[in-house]
Amino acid sequence: MKGKIISMINQLLLPHKFEIVDLKTTGETAYAIKTMIVRGAPAIGATAAFGLAQAAMLFNGNKNKFLDYIKESYKILLETRPTAYDLKDGLDFVFKAIKNNKDPYKVAQQYANKSVENTKKIGEFGNKLIKNNYKILTHCNAGALATVDYGTALAPIRTAHYSGKKIFVFVDETRPRLQGARLTAFEMAEEKIPHAIIADNAAGYYMRKKEINICIVGADRIAVNGDVANKIGTYEKAVLAKENNIPFYVAAPTSTIDLECINGDKIPIEERDEDEVHLVQGTDNNEIKKVRISPKQSKALNPAFDITPAKYISGIITEKGVIKANKKGIISLFK
Amino acid sequence: MKGKIISMINQLLLPHKFEIVDLKTTGETAYAIKTMIVRGAPAIGATAAFGLAQAAMLFNGNKNKFLDYIKESYKILLETRPTAYDLKDGLDFVFKAIKNNKDPYKVAQQYANKSVENTKKIGEFGNKLIKNNYKILTHCNAGALATVDYGTALAPIRTAHYSGKKIFVFVDETRPRLQGARLTAFEMAEEKIPHAIIADNAAGYYMRKKEINICIVGADRIAVNGDVANKIGTYEKAVLAKENNIPFYVAAPTSTIDLECINGDKIPIEERDEDEVHLVQGTDNNEIKKVRISPKQSKALNPAFDITPAKYISGIITEKGVIKANKKGIISLFK
Repeated sequence: MKGKIISMINQLLLPHKFEIVDLKTTGETAYAIKTMIVRGAPAIGATAAFGLAQAAMLFNGNKNKFLDYIKESYKILLETRPTAYDLKDGLDFVFKAIKNNKDPYKVAQQYANKSVENTKKIGEFGNKLIKNNYKILTHCNAGALATVDYGTALAPIRTAHYSGKKIFVFVDETRPRLQGARLTAFEMAEEKIPHAIIADNAAGYYMRKKEINICIVGADRIAVNGDVANKIGTYEKAVLAKENNIPFYVAAPTSTIDLECINGDKIPIEERDEDEVHLVQGTDNNEIKKVRISPKQSKALNPAFDITPAKYISGIITEKGVIKANKKGIISLFK
Repeated sequence: MKGKIISMINQLLLPHKFEIVDLKTTGETAYAIKTMIVRGAPAIGATAAFGLAQAAMLFNGNKNKFLDYIKESYKILLETRPTAYDLKDGLDFVFKAIKNNKDPYKVAQQYANKSVENTKKIGEFGNKLIKNNYKILTHCNAGALATVDYGTALAPIRTAHYSGKKIFVFVDETRPRLQGARLTAFEMAEEKIPHAIIADNAAGYYMRKKEINICIVGADRIAVNGDVANKIGTYEKAVLAKENNIPFYVAAPTSTIDLECINGDKIPIEERDEDEVHLVQGTDNNEIKKVRISPKQSKALNPAFDITPAKYISGIITEKGVIKANKKGIISLFK
């Protein structure tokens, strides 16, 4: 953020084109979250934090109306996407500071810095689970692009790689939005971490062949019983990992835990436009194009997230260590 | 087949364009199977049968060399694709007839007619498993396009629909080749059978929500212990169905059973070109285009099939009834 302008990579165009987008108003910031110019739970959280700070900085009306304006901006930003809990966490952090007359920009920056610190710690704790020569499956993108930097699911992978371990990453392409094939593969290629993209259908095949040693994914919201909402398909991989005795870890900061949510089935699941299934974006002769893959008469259904019950999850890698639901079905809460 | 020319729909272009391809030589017929102009186990079997008949009809050399020529053609056709067993079944049927001096064309036609009869019977037996208001998941395309007509997995669905039952079909898009989104959706749309395409990642989500009552898929090869090779991703859906107590059926003629194959792990799995993952075909302004979805530096892995162990399969719907592995792990053999 520079002045009152929030700048970010347009993730809709990666890996085909690198473009920086400038967001000048609360409406533009909300639009960027809604349309997935920025996506990934921690990145959404930080963007929302800066978005609310931006709203405070842009306000030039009657002082009496300031808090109403902030509340309205809070609502606009919160309603962009229903599933990711970091969104609310980021907004609450800045909202509280604004009420206490703190500098909203400084507070948002503090939130973002803390977010980066958290991912580094997630990397350290997660790295302990990765042995030399491990083959790792990840789903969607929970990398630097999904966070302020470094990543959640990709943080342990980065830390393992830079600590000199030999690793190989199976990258689920992650239909319909292809965050794996587009974004995770891009991050792995940039850092020269050995990897291969696979169709989502092939993950079970490699698990059954014992070619995957560990699965690590991100999270959009975690209920207090340890159930996890994450990108559609996560539940499938978790069930398959359990069936094949492969550890399945979720990497997420504790800000992803919704203390008011008793179990996964209470988490709202976003249904997105069916065109995300019908149309696939890519490049043809270096030009970005969307092609329609399906008959025009056919409908599609497009749930963006699913719930993975705690019983399929080996542990949640947080900035405070690896946690797991206890016998009462409650995860240790040290938020 | 007309004269010595085999004609077929080019499935590579569906649903975007309807094109008939004429195959004039054994080489062209083999190429059509290899490149998936024709695909689907029973359709491959019938094409190979006609292909060998075509070879016999095209032969104009020394009579002494006829059988060697036929054996060579058999080999060329057999080596096109490694996993589908109907390919060998169709070739063996015609090869035996040629050795016994029967008319190869008539024999191939007989094979194709029998194949259609079988699918009708599969439809009848499978229909008994489908109740009114059932929601059915299918993977890949085991429809009319995958067979000579009517389909295997789609045969019970067609029969149920035409018998007046209200049904709804969840169509897995089936990456990487999108046979679900392209071909199954096309067949469902043509016959006005209510359906929706979903990303392969979403099948587990709908299973967990109890929105799927039964799964029916096809098969490329069945081992005598009841293990099934089918399109990549089938194993994932079968594990998820079992986890959610949803019946999982395989629909296939008994010609798909390989009596020499004792279990699924003996079935060769075809690895196809990585570009099938990197490039997605669709239409842009009615023009057929392929777009690249992934970074150029990234590799992809592309196993085309997987093995579903018998324990996940509720039954195999054949032309002779629904069969299942017995306690000794052998399916009833009434081939």
